[in-house]
Amino acid sequence: MDTESFRREARRVADWVADYLRDVELFPVLSPAEPGVVRAALPSQPPPSGEPLDAVLRDLEELLLPATTHWQSPGFMAYFASSGSGPGILGETLAAGLNVNAMLWRTAPAATELEQVTLDWLRQMVGLPEPLFGVINDTASSSTLYALAAAREAQTDLRIRELGMAGRPDLPRLRYYASAEAHSSVEKAGIVLGVGRDGLRRIPVDDRFRMDPVALRRAIREDIAAGIRPFAVVATAGTTSTTSVDPVAAIAGICEQHGLWLHVDAAYGGAAAVAPELRWVLDGAERADSIVLNPHKWLFTPIDCSVLWTRRPEMLRSAFSIVPEYLASNQGTDDDAPNLMDYGTSLGRRMRALKLWMVIRHFGTDGLAARIREHCAMASTVAQWVEHASDFELLAPAPLSVVCLRAHPRGLDDPGTLDTLNQRIVERINTGGRYFLSHTRLRDAYAIRVAFGNVRQEQRHARGVIDALRHSMDDDVG
Amino acid sequence: MDTESFRREARRVADWVADYLRDVELFPVLSPAEPGVVRAALPSQPPPSGEPLDAVLRDLEELLLPATTHWQSPGFMAYFASSGSGPGILGETLAAGLNVNAMLWRTAPAATELEQVTLDWLRQMVGLPEPLFGVINDTASSSTLYALAAAREAQTDLRIRELGMAGRPDLPRLRYYASAEAHSSVEKAGIVLGVGRDGLRRIPVDDRFRMDPVALRRAIREDIAAGIRPFAVVATAGTTSTTSVDPVAAIAGICEQHGLWLHVDAAYGGAAAVAPELRWVLDGAERADSIVLNPHKWLFTPIDCSVLWTRRPEMLRSAFSIVPEYLASNQGTDDDAPNLMDYGTSLGRRMRALKLWMVIRHFGTDGLAARIREHCAMASTVAQWVEHASDFELLAPAPLSVVCLRAHPRGLDDPGTLDTLNQRIVERINTGGRYFLSHTRLRDAYAIRVAFGNVRQEQRHARGVIDALRHSMDDDVG
Repeated sequence: MDTESFRREARRVADWVADYLRDVELFPVLSPAEPGVVRAALPSQPPPSGEPLDAVLRDLEELLLPATTHWQSPGFMAYFASSGSGPGILGETLAAGLNVNAMLWRTAPAATELEQVTLDWLRQMVGLPEPLFGVINDTASSSTLYALAAAREAQTDLRIRELGMAGRPDLPRLRYYASAEAHSSVEKAGIVLGVGRDGLRRIPVDDRFRMDPVALRRAIREDIAAGIRPFAVVATAGTTSTTSVDPVAAIAGICEQHGLWLHVDAAYGGAAAVAPELRWVLDGAERADSIVLNPHKWLFTPIDCSVLWTRRPEMLRSAFSIVPEYLASNQGTDDDAPNLMDYGTSLGRRMRALKLWMVIRHFGTDGLAARIREHCAMASTVAQWVEHASDFELLAPAPLSVVCLRAHPRGLDDPGTLDTLNQRIVERINTGGRYFLSHTRLRDAYAIRVAFGNVRQEQRHARGVIDALRHSMDDDVG
Repeated sequence: MDTESFRREARRVADWVADYLRDVELFPVLSPAEPGVVRAALPSQPPPSGEPLDAVLRDLEELLLPATTHWQSPGFMAYFASSGSGPGILGETLAAGLNVNAMLWRTAPAATELEQVTLDWLRQMVGLPEPLFGVINDTASSSTLYALAAAREAQTDLRIRELGMAGRPDLPRLRYYASAEAHSSVEKAGIVLGVGRDGLRRIPVDDRFRMDPVALRRAIREDIAAGIRPFAVVATAGTTSTTSVDPVAAIAGICEQHGLWLHVDAAYGGAAAVAPELRWVLDGAERADSIVLNPHKWLFTPIDCSVLWTRRPEMLRSAFSIVPEYLASNQGTDDDAPNLMDYGTSLGRRMRALKLWMVIRHFGTDGLAARIREHCAMASTVAQWVEHASDFELLAPAPLSVVCLRAHPRGLDDPGTLDTLNQRIVERINTGGRYFLSHTRLRDAYAIRVAFGNVRQEQRHARGVIDALRHSMDDDVG
């Protein structure tokens, strides 16, 4: 493609995205497509000759958009928000245009150092003390896997990097800890690392879904007495179901006492700390060995962008660094000008810092804090409505931007019937197309989750989803 | 950012990328920047208020570009090429605009099914038989890690997913195999999985740098006799140093005999199979349990895009699937409409298929094959020149798009002196700015690597690098 053709097509694509964002609220948020419809509509064989962009954009509109769930829509209130702001989208375009691979410092000095600078900005924005070394990974699942790999490596006497774990009668069983509410990626990391599902001990939570540090201490002591080697604790600042925040400072004390690696999963919640009055969500995280925070969740950066910070970068390097001759370089061997391939499994790395840097510069720290504050206010609007509604109830505190609730009409107390009612309410709203809600289970009850955090959301969307809940409930009970 | 501001800025960014690609050959390919220069030039604190795009683009040009190594430049002949074509860049822009997360089928039906369709196109393009289930990961390092995790899981009697490997006297030692020339990611995967560096046994290569299957068979038998449990072999179709292709069919026979998982690392070489006359690079791969091929290497798709195919998707799911309540969905439970989060560590997933689909549609299969053919012809041009030059020599066969060579003036036979001479030649070329070459070591000698595969390369670049080698050598010996 010659330059002028590219220019023409790139402008068309720019317009296409602008139109899409202008119209995004007009689409049903949750795609009504049936499985297999896109596959059936597309040719089963690749084209032998090239096709024009027109044909691609036509298929995008006619075949792909109707089968798209619109994460960019302000009606998207499922899971955690993950919305790409304008500057973030432009950052992705520029990164793809430059297309550098930041595996070594010298293969991408600007990308490598911009990542360091931007993550230091973010560190300041959430109030964490330096020094804190940061790298951007694709997702929190990867960041948590890398953190736990470093934690395993920190058990240096076991020589797991060299000798592995299988067939070694000299090794103790290994164990790490997380609350019953911790994210599934914490369990998955243990499976990948060969620590196994049994290697994770789930610690009970209190009545506000926070890890019970007394139970944690007891579990660690029991395990040590049983000859098991504890090596890490994962605390969560903003759990997936209810956004509860574990008592990180108390957990840090226990970790320090037992020499355990503390990883804080603040993938969602950490962003809240950009607003000074919400900085409490990271209380104690300054004592963590590693922290994950995903700007692609609540900081308006397009997916994927997950920040892993660590106070012990040398341990991450010990866990991951292998330098073959064809990558040998006399530069980039320290944390000032690092070779980022040494801090995780992936060798190749996109210039992900560019979009985050552009988001921070576009909004400014005050602008980002203001939006986070607004999202929490939207959650409060919904929570307050629920508290005053006679036939709805909160199922968990709503400290941040997510509300867990259910319909509970007077006199209807059968758990199964309540579950079914609330399931129907969600399905009716999701089918309606204006909002997309997800659910969870809390104390064995079906809970409706309403999650704010989309960059395009305003108070009218909070009021809108309240109306939708009200009407869906009324339609049900007739 | 309102829609019309976004439109205006997106067009500016489109123009910026068009200008960059027009001018890319004017920049020094390998950045001459010193470590720390970007970090020192950028503000150490984030801006409290928003800044205009102008300021960002100015910093991009004045601070970041001079510290950028230009992977998009046709003078980039280091490592393996990784260049983003126009349609690939536009695909990234559209994917960022839509910003879907394809973790579950229902959160991104179009992205999920487009990935299936596009990877089936690619399967046909490289001549692999169906059925073959494919997923896109970020890099080959991840794809290989996932493949080996599935291979470990396939040892079902060991119950590693549930019980882990540490502190289990019932477990045998585990072992997997790859050639001495296999990529470092193969070793890194074993470290992550807790199999350890000792878990990987390196098999010697023949005089053309291909794994010796006789030595492989012997190694497996020795290990079994010693009570070790072999579980996988990684064959390489296009090694990093010399692009040698292991005898995959012979290796497959050995794997079948011993019930071992065969993973084929065709991250670079697999793309060659798009040209029918080069399809031999995947001979035997039809018998593999898993294959990795990176379109972000030699298929002009912006980084990152690594395809992992497997004939045993159920084993990948066994290794990775964990479905918590908040992600429970009654859709996407089979391979026709899969939940892609179940096939690797990452939960969140960008719509990476879009860019690959757009690249295939833009070029057509014939167009892609033609470019691959041209790149191999460029390598032949260089290889033939070396063969006829009295003071240069080939250090390995050049079956694809990479040539390994060195200067070897008559009478100069001291290994150390030859290494230093060739190192100086590379440094002089890289400092010159028109080309960026990397090196490797072959039979303990420093080898210059000249790698083609950039979408913007033409025969004139092959002739240009020949001149550069000639002049750099002449300048050295005076």
